[in-house]
Amino acid sequence: MGIVIPLEENRPPQASIKPLMELVNQDMKLVNQLILSKTGSNVEMIPQIAKHLIDSGGKRLRPMLTLAAAQMCAYEGTHHITLAASVEFMHTATLLHDDVVDESDMRRGKKSARMLWGNQASVLVGDFLLGQAFRMMVDAGSMDALDVLSNAATVIAEGEVMQLAVAQNMETNEDDYLTIIRSKTAALFSAAAEVGPIIAGAEKPVRDAFRSYGTNLGVAFQLVDDALDYGGSKALLGKNTGDDFREGKITLPVLLCYRRGNEDDRAFWKEAMENGSSDDEALLQANALMEKYGAIKDTVARARHYGQIARDALAPLPDSPQKDALLDVVKFCISRVN
Amino acid sequence: MGIVIPLEENRPPQASIKPLMELVNQDMKLVNQLILSKTGSNVEMIPQIAKHLIDSGGKRLRPMLTLAAAQMCAYEGTHHITLAASVEFMHTATLLHDDVVDESDMRRGKKSARMLWGNQASVLVGDFLLGQAFRMMVDAGSMDALDVLSNAATVIAEGEVMQLAVAQNMETNEDDYLTIIRSKTAALFSAAAEVGPIIAGAEKPVRDAFRSYGTNLGVAFQLVDDALDYGGSKALLGKNTGDDFREGKITLPVLLCYRRGNEDDRAFWKEAMENGSSDDEALLQANALMEKYGAIKDTVARARHYGQIARDALAPLPDSPQKDALLDVVKFCISRVN
Repeated sequence: MGIVIPLEENRPPQASIKPLMELVNQDMKLVNQLILSKTGSNVEMIPQIAKHLIDSGGKRLRPMLTLAAAQMCAYEGTHHITLAASVEFMHTATLLHDDVVDESDMRRGKKSARMLWGNQASVLVGDFLLGQAFRMMVDAGSMDALDVLSNAATVIAEGEVMQLAVAQNMETNEDDYLTIIRSKTAALFSAAAEVGPIIAGAEKPVRDAFRSYGTNLGVAFQLVDDALDYGGSKALLGKNTGDDFREGKITLPVLLCYRRGNEDDRAFWKEAMENGSSDDEALLQANALMEKYGAIKDTVARARHYGQIARDALAPLPDSPQKDALLDVVKFCISRVN
Repeated sequence: MGIVIPLEENRPPQASIKPLMELVNQDMKLVNQLILSKTGSNVEMIPQIAKHLIDSGGKRLRPMLTLAAAQMCAYEGTHHITLAASVEFMHTATLLHDDVVDESDMRRGKKSARMLWGNQASVLVGDFLLGQAFRMMVDAGSMDALDVLSNAATVIAEGEVMQLAVAQNMETNEDDYLTIIRSKTAALFSAAAEVGPIIAGAEKPVRDAFRSYGTNLGVAFQLVDDALDYGGSKALLGKNTGDDFREGKITLPVLLCYRRGNEDDRAFWKEAMENGSSDDEALLQANALMEKYGAIKDTVARARHYGQIARDALAPLPDSPQKDALLDVVKFCISRVN
């Protein structure tokens, strides 16, 4: 019998999202008010579904990026509020449509909107929220911001179609996968960060810095999500794990595992992903293979790589509490997986 | 035996859409080129689906409204092309999402995109086209046009959700139904017509005239569509009739028939619409009731009423070939049903 040493206590304090939340707290209250007012409709189902999603406990990371970026550029107007709400609506619309496309039953531990109100309402309320997002962008009055966000809307949809096209194809490679997540996830992070300096009238290098920060943070965020779906670095099975596997969604951990595996392992993945043999027993085996080939560990390593690029992107900008908070957010996103 | 008198030959020549098509022919070629170029994507499925829809033989009435309205306002730039393409993309995105929502197997006599590529691709390619529509609006550079079109996007989705909410509810009244079709159909006709004068920098009364024209033409157009789905004024069963009935979609002919019917008739409609007893035999009975209560005839009469408002809306504007063509389009839309 040995002595259990609580290693965790020796760790440095983990990075937190709290400094960011505190810095944008006042602005975020206004964003939340605006979001509530813009879900209003005489058509009862619309505020119901919107409220369900808005209350379902997302961290609202994307609109916080817009707010912090605008603050860092010393913006003094109110349009960053409008754009932040618009970014969150675009995100929410995407979630609604994603659930229909993925046939998801759950979303963040709650029944998904499509399970409660049906696919039809999810498609249409998504369209409504997207329309409202564009109306808010118009209210903000910046053609450049409209350009960046409408471009993101297209790229996101393109990424989702790409993912659909490679679904169940185990020959997808890491580059293909990166193109997908750059589009479907990172494009909105990127736009959310870039419209901050845009609305503040910042110079191009500042816009570029925020865009790069957002893109790379988005890629890191998605890779960490992929790892978490297999229980994170410890490959533990939690209540919210295994969704990607059961849906046959090919993510980086799966791609790494498949490429590094022997013939039997590859046959297992083909059977699970391409033919849908993905029950709980198969999930256990999947996790064992992830452990064996270091697929989760290396997915997180890849995420750290993009996280570092995100942090370095902000380096040329002057120091400020907002900058520190945004740097912390990168660490926080990655620390979720430890 | 009597002599068959070909009554049709004694009719006045029917109004035609041809004068409009000829006037905007040059512009429309540019719109079609732009549409093709904007469906381009490295993601193969996107141009495939877009091409399927674009080739499927719609008349492109909505973008023609934008072009003719811009011409009437002596617009000399090229942004009316961009806006017209944008309007057609919004329409196409709506069709894709509608087919998913209505679970339609056919669209204009061809297999619907969702039957060929699946619901998932239809949702996502719809999102892509909507994103491209907004990018084109940004290219056109008019905040006012963006305002009108983004507002239309929201209103259309709201109308569709409303229709979903009243689906299978025979207590829906004519006012409710008008609110729905003003939103889901007329809002895009209205925006399509209004962005013409907007891009040309026309005065508010001119914008208002085109908006009213578009709205009322849109309502008339939808009511005629509703009548056509029951075989038009002659209540003949054609190859493209009965879709609304089979889908349990409550339209004005149904509402009129239900309200005017006796207890047995109302029981029939409830059974057909609310409980889905809408086979071919039921469709024959539905058509007999339509005939008995003059429901198709009176739906067309309602359409004529809105058509007349549309025509009068243009009255204050100076005479021009474009104006004549737009007036003819109203008659043409209604004559489809004769």
